[in-house]
Amino acid sequence: MEITDSENETIFPLGNRGPENWFSGEVHVQTLVSPEQIEGLYTVGQVTFSAGGRTYWHTHPIGQVLLVIEGKGWYQERGKPAQVLQKGTVVAIPKEVEHWHGASADHKMVHIAVSNIADGNSVTWKTPVTGDEYAEVNKQ
Amino acid sequence: MEITDSENETIFPLGNRGPENWFSGEVHVQTLVSPEQIEGLYTVGQVTFSAGGRTYWHTHPIGQVLLVIEGKGWYQERGKPAQVLQKGTVVAIPKEVEHWHGASADHKMVHIAVSNIADGNSVTWKTPVTGDEYAEVNKQ
Repeated sequence: MEITDSENETIFPLGNRGPENWFSGEVHVQTLVSPEQIEGLYTVGQVTFSAGGRTYWHTHPIGQVLLVIEGKGWYQERGKPAQVLQKGTVVAIPKEVEHWHGASADHKMVHIAVSNIADGNSVTWKTPVTGDEYAEVNKQ
Repeated sequence: MEITDSENETIFPLGNRGPENWFSGEVHVQTLVSPEQIEGLYTVGQVTFSAGGRTYWHTHPIGQVLLVIEGKGWYQERGKPAQVLQKGTVVAIPKEVEHWHGASADHKMVHIAVSNIADGNSVTWKTPVTGDEYAEVNKQ
C-alpha cells in the first residue's frame, strides 16, 4: 500500500518501516528525539499508520502521550470501547494499561508519540490485535 | 495583529494569550497535556507566535523539546548565533541553558513544546529579548 499525502503536507519525514513484531500492516516510524538528547526521560517519534495498520496490544511503564496530526484511527484499552482518533486528538495513556492504537480500516493516521522511559524501557509488547478484534472496532 | 491560517489548517486550537511577563508581542498558548495526566513528568502545549512574537530569555531545569509545525522563527542560546525554525524542525533544549524562541519579524511560527518538570517547575523566566537583540537576529 502506498502512503499518500494528498490531504496536507507531511510535517516530519516518513521514516522507516516499524518492526513486524510491534505492528500489523504498514507502519512507518520516524524518531524525532532520542533519550540521550533529553536527560533519558522519553523518546519522541512520529508514527504513520497506513489504512489497516496498527500496533500490537502493549503497555507503557510510566505512560505515553499521543498527538494526532493527520487522518483517522482508533485507540482502545483492553475491555473498553475504542475511541476515535482524528487530527487534533490528544491521548494521555496511563501507565500499565494494556491498549492499542492505529489507523482505521479505510484511512491513514499519523501521530506524534512521547514515550516515557522507566528503567531504560518505554513499552512492553503483547499479542497482535486480531483481524476479528480490528473488524469489530471498524464496524463503529 | 490577526492570526491567519491561510497556509494550512491548524491542528490544535489557538488557546489563550500568554502572560505578558513571559512573552513579547502576540503569543497564544494551548495546553494539550497537564502534568497530572502524565505522572507529573512534563506539560505539553502548543504555542502560536504571531510575527514579531517571542519568549523572554529563560531556562529549563531539565530541558524542553520543541516540534515546529508551521511557519518560520528563531531559536537562540545566549552568546550564540540564532538558528532558523521552520515546519519540521525539532529542538532538544539542554537543561539550564539560557535561550529564547519565537516567530520571525515577518512570519508567524507554531510549535509544540514538551516542558520537563523538576521539583514542580519547568521554566525560569529572565529578561525580555530587546528590540535590538531581535532586530539583529532578523537581519540574518
